[in-house]
Amino acid sequence: MQDASTTLAQLREIVRRFVEERDWRQFHSPKNLSMSLAIEAAELMEHFQWIDAAESRRIGDDPAKLAAVREEIADCCCYLLALANELEIDLAAAVRDKMVKNAAKYPAEQSRGRYAPPELPGQWSRS
Amino acid sequence: MQDASTTLAQLREIVRRFVEERDWRQFHSPKNLSMSLAIEAAELMEHFQWIDAAESRRIGDDPAKLAAVREEIADCCCYLLALANELEIDLAAAVRDKMVKNAAKYPAEQSRGRYAPPELPGQWSRS
Amino acid sequence: MQDASTTLAQLREIVRRFVEERDWRQFHSPKNLSMSLAIEAAELMEHFQWIDAAESRRIGDDPAKLAAVREEIADCCCYLLALANELEIDLAAAVRDKMVKNAAKYPAEQSRGRYAPPELPGQWSRS
Amino acid sequence: MQDASTTLAQLREIVRRFVEERDWRQFHSPKNLSMSLAIEAAELMEHFQWIDAAESRRIGDDPAKLAAVREEIADCCCYLLALANELEIDLAAAVRDKMVKNAAKYPAEQSRGRYAPPELPGQWSRS
Repeated sequence: MQDASTTLAQLREIVRRFVEERDWRQFHSPKNLSMSLAIEAAELMEHFQWIDAAESRRIGDDPAKLAAVREEIADCCCYLLALANELEIDLAAAVRDKMVKNAAKYPAEQSRGRYAPPELPGQWSRS
Repeated sequence: MQDASTTLAQLREIVRRFVEERDWRQFHSPKNLSMSLAIEAAELMEHFQWIDAAESRRIGDDPAKLAAVREEIADCCCYLLALANELEIDLAAAVRDKMVKNAAKYPAEQSRGRYAPPELPGQWSRS
Repeated sequence: MQDASTTLAQLREIVRRFVEERDWRQFHSPKNLSMSLAIEAAELMEHFQWIDAAESRRIGDDPAKLAAVREEIADCCCYLLALANELEIDLAAAVRDKMVKNAAKYPAEQSRGRYAPPELPGQWSRS
Repeated sequence: MQDASTTLAQLREIVRRFVEERDWRQFHSPKNLSMSLAIEAAELMEHFQWIDAAESRRIGDDPAKLAAVREEIADCCCYLLALANELEIDLAAAVRDKMVKNAAKYPAEQSRGRYAPPELPGQWSRS
């Protein structure tokens, strides 16, 4: 399974089936799933807690660390897919719509490498 | 663009190009991106902060609330895609590997609707 | 040491000395400390991840669980004290000022047990 | 009100009374309060999201930024106090106990300015 040939729907189905087989939907309220995503995001952050930006870019130099980070990223992704399943939200369409909104808010020419008012660069999520 | 026909690679490319066009990679250290994902996950949680599980399952009844939640989920997804790009991690493969590990740890028959020792149900992310 | 007889300054001093003795201020940039507080807050959340509100109110019935929650709360408090030390922010004054602001925003008579516009009840932190 | 002369109990009482006057305890399950603390911690992190460690140490140079950070720290503190109230946890005792545990785990002489195995420096919260 690879990004180049795997659709969002296929990944969502893997998660859906796993949850269904175990009758775990009862625990997967959107409230609990949002907490779960935040918990995993914090576990991912832990790997970068005390190192600086440059060192964080080199995390791939250490196979063990990269494997741990990869697993936390997978956990975040799984909960995001579970949320999409529970709320029946098409992720690709949601991402596409948000990126269109971001592009309008941060025109490429004006945003290159610097602060695009009123938000900080690299921060496209301030709607 | 829909989950049924969109690959992870296609979504990653949208994010990659957006970041590249604005010369924003300089801000996208894995450290900063992990903070960003946690920040967006918390914004998503805010929509469920004071309501209970049952009410959170009905969030889709209110179009305005669903739209807001959908946008936060998109923000989380975008930062996850940006992280995958920066760390050159194949998301589909990472998710597949983690789900295989989860399935081994929580065999369906033993995990149905109840606590699978030693973790809580619905919590497949405790490695 | 008890809340009834311990000042914020005394608690801050315990933390300050600990950090100083180990020459750890070099790691305690406000950026890293804010990440640390978020990480600990997520660890605290984990104890309530799959249970409902009512069950969370009974967490004190189980001594082992209460001890674990107590330790996470202590961790959150420690990082908050470290942040106050690094940024030279008087916590008591900051809390007092914010609670005054909250009281003006949510007059008691109008806010009793229900949604105070435009925020949700129990959510005094939306400034 | 200042840290030098304010006890934890006095700060807890301010929060307790505020919540009581508005009949908001119904919303303050430990589950919801833990989410609230994590949400505020993320809002605090936002102020340091795209800047580096050195720049984060200079946040006090800008009065407006410092005021915003001060307010987020107050919000975190308020929810921590609310949690202590709901769970009847003495914060000073909890912090004292954890710092004693930390001191035993990270003896000052061995931990000075460097990694104390097996945890990272500055990270006293890995129990």
